Amino acid sequence: MGSRLVVIGGGAAGMSAASAARRDDPHLEIVVLETGPDVAYGLCGIPYYLSGEVARADQLLAYPPEVFRDRRRIDVQTGATALSLDPERHSLRVTQHGEERTVNYHRLIVAAGGAPVLPPLPGLDDDLVFTVRSLEDAVALRSLLDAGRIGRALVVGGGYVGLEMAEALRTRGVSVTVVEMLDQVMPNLDGPLAALVEKELLRHDVDLRLATGLERVVRDVDGLHAVVGGEVIDVDAVVVAVGVRAAGGLAAQAGAATGPGGALTVDDRMRTSLPDVYACGDCIAPYHRVLGRPAFVPLGPAANKTGRVAGTVAAGGDAQFNGIVGTAVVKVFDLAVARTGLTMAEAEAEGLSPVATDVEGRSRAKYYPGAQPVTVRLVHGVAGRLLGAQMVGNDGVAKRIDVVAAALQAGFDVDDLADLDLSYAPPYAPVYEPILLAAQRASSTLHQQPVPA
Amino acid sequence: MGSRLVVIGGGAAGMSAASAARRDDPHLEIVVLETGPDVAYGLCGIPYYLSGEVARADQLLAYPPEVFRDRRRIDVQTGATALSLDPERHSLRVTQHGEERTVNYHRLIVAAGGAPVLPPLPGLDDDLVFTVRSLEDAVALRSLLDAGRIGRALVVGGGYVGLEMAEALRTRGVSVTVVEMLDQVMPNLDGPLAALVEKELLRHDVDLRLATGLERVVRDVDGLHAVVGGEVIDVDAVVVAVGVRAAGGLAAQAGAATGPGGALTVDDRMRTSLPDVYACGDCIAPYHRVLGRPAFVPLGPAANKTGRVAGTVAAGGDAQFNGIVGTAVVKVFDLAVARTGLTMAEAEAEGLSPVATDVEGRSRAKYYPGAQPVTVRLVHGVAGRLLGAQMVGNDGVAKRIDVVAAALQAGFDVDDLADLDLSYAPPYAPVYEPILLAAQRASSTLHQQPVPA
Repeated sequence: MGSRLVVIGGGAAGMSAASAARRDDPHLEIVVLETGPDVAYGLCGIPYYLSGEVARADQLLAYPPEVFRDRRRIDVQTGATALSLDPERHSLRVTQHGEERTVNYHRLIVAAGGAPVLPPLPGLDDDLVFTVRSLEDAVALRSLLDAGRIGRALVVGGGYVGLEMAEALRTRGVSVTVVEMLDQVMPNLDGPLAALVEKELLRHDVDLRLATGLERVVRDVDGLHAVVGGEVIDVDAVVVAVGVRAAGGLAAQAGAATGPGGALTVDDRMRTSLPDVYACGDCIAPYHRVLGRPAFVPLGPAANKTGRVAGTVAAGGDAQFNGIVGTAVVKVFDLAVARTGLTMAEAEAEGLSPVATDVEGRSRAKYYPGAQPVTVRLVHGVAGRLLGAQMVGNDGVAKRIDVVAAALQAGFDVDDLADLDLSYAPPYAPVYEPILLAAQRASSTLHQQPVPA
Repeated sequence: MGSRLVVIGGGAAGMSAASAARRDDPHLEIVVLETGPDVAYGLCGIPYYLSGEVARADQLLAYPPEVFRDRRRIDVQTGATALSLDPERHSLRVTQHGEERTVNYHRLIVAAGGAPVLPPLPGLDDDLVFTVRSLEDAVALRSLLDAGRIGRALVVGGGYVGLEMAEALRTRGVSVTVVEMLDQVMPNLDGPLAALVEKELLRHDVDLRLATGLERVVRDVDGLHAVVGGEVIDVDAVVVAVGVRAAGGLAAQAGAATGPGGALTVDDRMRTSLPDVYACGDCIAPYHRVLGRPAFVPLGPAANKTGRVAGTVAAGGDAQFNGIVGTAVVKVFDLAVARTGLTMAEAEAEGLSPVATDVEGRSRAKYYPGAQPVTVRLVHGVAGRLLGAQMVGNDGVAKRIDVVAAALQAGFDVDDLADLDLSYAPPYAPVYEPILLAAQRASSTLHQQPVPA
């Protein structure tokens, strides 16, 4: 008998791992254990399925199941949950369709993903409370929307997922209240940029409640009610989006080392501290190149990349993952909101004495139709080392942040950034690209030169 | 009396230089000599003024003349042409409004720009032959368009300016023939990518004539005719866009060192080889960081940046320009066409044994509305050193090329590029961003690993 690779989790990371392992070794037996009914679906597409912009749930599948089963010869087992891990015996206890059994492995990849955090509040077990982190949950909510049964909804959490949900629901004509414990939305943005996002929410008639919290959800003869900061709000549904926790507890319980957020820590080949056990995706804390240590930032690109590395290495090949720099973008109605590296708050928390340089540039030549403001914050050290950037705008923001992500990976300072030879044509950028404007402003301030008008 | 700085040329580079000098030294006397009637206009906006997307010519002015004259106290002299330069005496002979005089300087900045190349063919002195590199020329052509007097036009040259002109004219309903001597459009792109641009031109009913040339323009009683490859074409106007030559001949004649294209060579402070003479903008050959030597690439961003450095240094301050990497983007109808670094042809001409890796990615998640193909070519060395990239697509291409521009400046290889932590959200990018896809493909090929599906 040949070698057996078992992958726990059929999400983006797990299926990337299984596929990479197959590419590396055509003879390996590859088993994927997935608790839910679907594999390889794009979680990030759920808001657009709810809004109707994506017509059918199956469009969110990266590939149909047959591609994995037939073409890649991956034994995908749905409804199968790993209960415990015995690293010495190289075995798992697995429950599937009400039966429990032992599954042995030569190599194991833990790609258990992230689980939605559900605060310990009364009433969150109601059928009309959704976390929308599975296709099933999304299908249930969408059918209620399609049936016109949701007139008003409460979104708990003002982070990026909460705001995507708020937009999706508003797009369907639902009255939306967003409640956020902090005094700003998007905790991973600095206040002045978050304020632009708040304006955009208000402009789209989102009822925004900051610095307050959901207390409980109550159902009575009149229907569902949410108590928010002492006030009772009648709602037809509640969406809870207060964050995600790493779901690799099975490996942690078996002794695997963990780091920030209780996520599994791995080396650059995705090896955990347990022999023959690899981990990838939202259950790990990958290395953060700007922080210089692991960080828990569960996002799609790293899930795919770490999955691919874990699968390649577990199959006997070589690959490595050199970390993240904290890049993220989200669409909030007409705004793109992007960040990379560290915010001021994050850099201050590291004791870095950061400096913020803020500019408002334009997305296109000022005379070209459709030119829009692009607000840029650069975060850098007092000697000019680039630490991060944030951008908000409604034209060409997402790929602009990537320029700074590349600069962070290169270890640039603000002068290097100002030196960049960036593309220019009136329909796409002003001759002084906003990134360059910000870098020049930062450089002028540091060198105490006069600041250009 | 204080010090006098004279700037030859009131375009983007000259006015950037004059403004930077004023920021650095509030007391300097600053004189700008400009041959034409306008200063600080955006040449790159002319196609959009012709198409009508920009309503008025004055919208192309970066600032109204009063800003320079009153607020920045710059003595802007229009209709003034420098005829000769005596570097030992620090003086210029200048003609203005029919009178000739001597102008002395302490420091001189040559920002004479680029002059359109006019091939030595019969008939190009006709009033209906335009080069469209001045606002006056553009205003004349636009008024003919507005009067409905141009039904058919010939554009000579299939480079980026020619194609922008073709688009502008088609937008006005004009029948357009483009004639290009080479066997492809966009000589600064490799053939396979240029072919996508050619398709786009045909899709918009541009009559494209490759590998042939204009022979002469003839006017007779029936009107204007162009002879192209022996065929006579009736036209109402001819636009010549076959390139630009550096217009710093005055300094070259006075002994300043020149490089590629006869352009002035400068150091990183924009000093020419003549004492107290600086140069900037389209009349210089700036340092090309990938080639490792000066190159003549007359484009707007470097004009502005080198202008700023020349002005700062000439006024006694310190600044430096560290070069270009050859980044450019152009809109051709619905396509954005972008490049940075070296093409295969350019890298081969350097003797670099380059390798091309081509991929077709998507601009957004495949399920998200509006996702479009993005064709990427990476050019790299056999050991993986990144040399350049080209991209063609109609969604989100311009800022994607900038990521590679940053990577080139950083000296990345294809593995570094594949490591980039780029932004992802379904409306803005697929989880495997096209740049990363190309970098991974290149890396897999180099390491002879299996190529991902």
